[in-house]
Amino acid sequence: MSTVDPVEMAARVALCDLVRLQLAGGFGARFLERLVRAFGSLEAALAAPSGTLQARAGLRVPLAARIATSSREHALREIERARERGVRLLPLGDADYPPALAAIPDPPLVLYVRGALVPDAARIAVVGSRRASGYGRAMARRIGADLARAGVCVVSGLALGIDGLAHEAALEAGGRTVAVLPCGLDRVYPRRHARLAEQIAAHGALVSELPLGTRAAPYQFPRRNRIVSGLAAAVCVVEARERSGSLITARWALEQDREVLAVPGRVGDETAVGTLALLEQGAAPALGAHSLLDAVGWRVTHTAGGRGEDRGEGASAVPGTNGADAASASDNRLAKALGEPGEVRGRVLASLAEGELDLDTIVARSGLAVSQALGAITELELAGAIEAAGAGRYRRCGAGSGAR
Amino acid sequence: MSTVDPVEMAARVALCDLVRLQLAGGFGARFLERLVRAFGSLEAALAAPSGTLQARAGLRVPLAARIATSSREHALREIERARERGVRLLPLGDADYPPALAAIPDPPLVLYVRGALVPDAARIAVVGSRRASGYGRAMARRIGADLARAGVCVVSGLALGIDGLAHEAALEAGGRTVAVLPCGLDRVYPRRHARLAEQIAAHGALVSELPLGTRAAPYQFPRRNRIVSGLAAAVCVVEARERSGSLITARWALEQDREVLAVPGRVGDETAVGTLALLEQGAAPALGAHSLLDAVGWRVTHTAGGRGEDRGEGASAVPGTNGADAASASDNRLAKALGEPGEVRGRVLASLAEGELDLDTIVARSGLAVSQALGAITELELAGAIEAAGAGRYRRCGAGSGAR
Repeated sequence: MSTVDPVEMAARVALCDLVRLQLAGGFGARFLERLVRAFGSLEAALAAPSGTLQARAGLRVPLAARIATSSREHALREIERARERGVRLLPLGDADYPPALAAIPDPPLVLYVRGALVPDAARIAVVGSRRASGYGRAMARRIGADLARAGVCVVSGLALGIDGLAHEAALEAGGRTVAVLPCGLDRVYPRRHARLAEQIAAHGALVSELPLGTRAAPYQFPRRNRIVSGLAAAVCVVEARERSGSLITARWALEQDREVLAVPGRVGDETAVGTLALLEQGAAPALGAHSLLDAVGWRVTHTAGGRGEDRGEGASAVPGTNGADAASASDNRLAKALGEPGEVRGRVLASLAEGELDLDTIVARSGLAVSQALGAITELELAGAIEAAGAGRYRRCGAGSGAR
Repeated sequence: MSTVDPVEMAARVALCDLVRLQLAGGFGARFLERLVRAFGSLEAALAAPSGTLQARAGLRVPLAARIATSSREHALREIERARERGVRLLPLGDADYPPALAAIPDPPLVLYVRGALVPDAARIAVVGSRRASGYGRAMARRIGADLARAGVCVVSGLALGIDGLAHEAALEAGGRTVAVLPCGLDRVYPRRHARLAEQIAAHGALVSELPLGTRAAPYQFPRRNRIVSGLAAAVCVVEARERSGSLITARWALEQDREVLAVPGRVGDETAVGTLALLEQGAAPALGAHSLLDAVGWRVTHTAGGRGEDRGEGASAVPGTNGADAASASDNRLAKALGEPGEVRGRVLASLAEGELDLDTIVARSGLAVSQALGAITELELAGAIEAAGAGRYRRCGAGSGAR
């Protein structure tokens, strides 16, 4: 009993039973696992009286009572209502359930989906503050649009501010976007984004694990955020104040082994307190969509805008090497970047092929910027390849003449 | 001959010969090492004719000629002139030569010093753009002042902009600062900082490896920057444009195994292009002096301003664990920080000791912020310690009742 695989388990359980459990307030594969451990199957648990649920699975009275009094008919009505509203129910274990989400520690048992959610699309989450600065708003737009152009689906939470802007920018760039709602899919929160939600449903998907009719409530936001990060390969926090839901998303991302990136801002700006703390704590800086693609190791194969996801073309950002590789690659990035390409050094050396030159002439002959030339000169000096010849002039150290 | 230790070697060589070599344009311990390899001693090299210098040490004509025609008298006059001007000559290997600087790959053979340079003081370099933004200027001032208050000596290059502001702020906070000049110590570059240079000489030190009378020249800046980073345990780049001398200092810091930090700025700001590139390449973000002290593993033992260096009190920032420890400590910082302290979770759990509560009541009883409480609740849920009880209420999972 200790090797229960929630994904396999859910796949074997009827959709109706999973919906019934979710309607009663039993969310997530961990909760299912607990019931199955105690009762052998979800069917047996749903057939048990409240007292037995309390005693054997350690449930408290209200939840045990709701499960014991839940009805198959209620679940069937929910399934029918979803069908009428164009909402698809994706049980964990379904072939169309996103594998990335299925792999998180506590995946939703049943996903409510409006629109098209391609299981293994390339997805990156872009989240942030509701009260965003002009800078944060511009960065959300730019990153959302650039990810979309790279063929990456933008995941966010439909909130006002950064979230909404990232969704909008992805749509305007002709790309796809997924919004995870903190309420039932027949409701939209915030209401001000009702029209945006319709556009998202048309060019992406609206997603929730909450039953139809569920209103948004603050305690639902943190659990919702685990779906945002769970659908994505990386989470980019664009702006976050000191206490921000975006930081909860970042924590989920970490728990789920996703990359966490933050857009740098100015020290002292209220809107940057959370993002700067993330950077300080080891998050990679997101300077644009390229940082995110680098972090997950995706190469962009073409940059034309396009809604590839629903045309079966797959995303144009190609998941290649990931996780471990990306991390090891970043280890020595500072050394490599500051070490500068040998090409610059080669151009300085070449300019000195015919003898001693001053800096201005090296710059003129090599076509380098003064600072580039100076940098290469110091390196070449350190390497013993050239030497200062006085009066601001440099020479190659004689080949074969004992120079180190 | 392949295990020549430049520091030992220089200590055995007379100051006069080292000054003679430097006057002739032979800078750095690597160059000395090369001559000693070829001639057995500096004395022998200085006695050799130009042709022999060219043939045996691979020197080009002008440098070989300058060394061959250099005179002991000229060097003695330089030493006397320095004495008259209150400039101390510190040869590599001298007990007062800063050990940190002696340990870099190519330390200066003779340091010219005006003021008091305590060999093993706690020093951090703060450098940046000449054309600084208001934000950069404010950060330079704040970091310079806070380092000084923590008893750390601020090293910089006396340049206009960030460098000058860091020096000024350290002095105004009653601390010490060291300026490394790209010219002889009887000249001041830039001239506009002549008065600041005098204050630095009085409450810190002016330092150079260039002979008296040497004018500032662009090709001297990069080599000067190796002394800035070489004197410091860490280099903080406050602002840097795309091509900036500060980035050369950062590269030296890396070559010298110093910590490199950069103050975050806004993506798109010209003044932040260089610092953001450093962050992207793996530099740690400097959000203030505390980031720098953390990076080098110094604990601040008292924060009163004071010029401890010349009162023999030592610095109040205590070099403790460093390098490797700091790096390994930072490895898991993101996980730890986002994981939040168990204390917060404990307070949520305690608030639920007597039964089911809604979020508002948990917040009221625990004294936590809503976001803190929500974060802890999700963690406790994940850990199976509490469970949602519907209607936004939470309960502890029954102890000993089979709950995982």
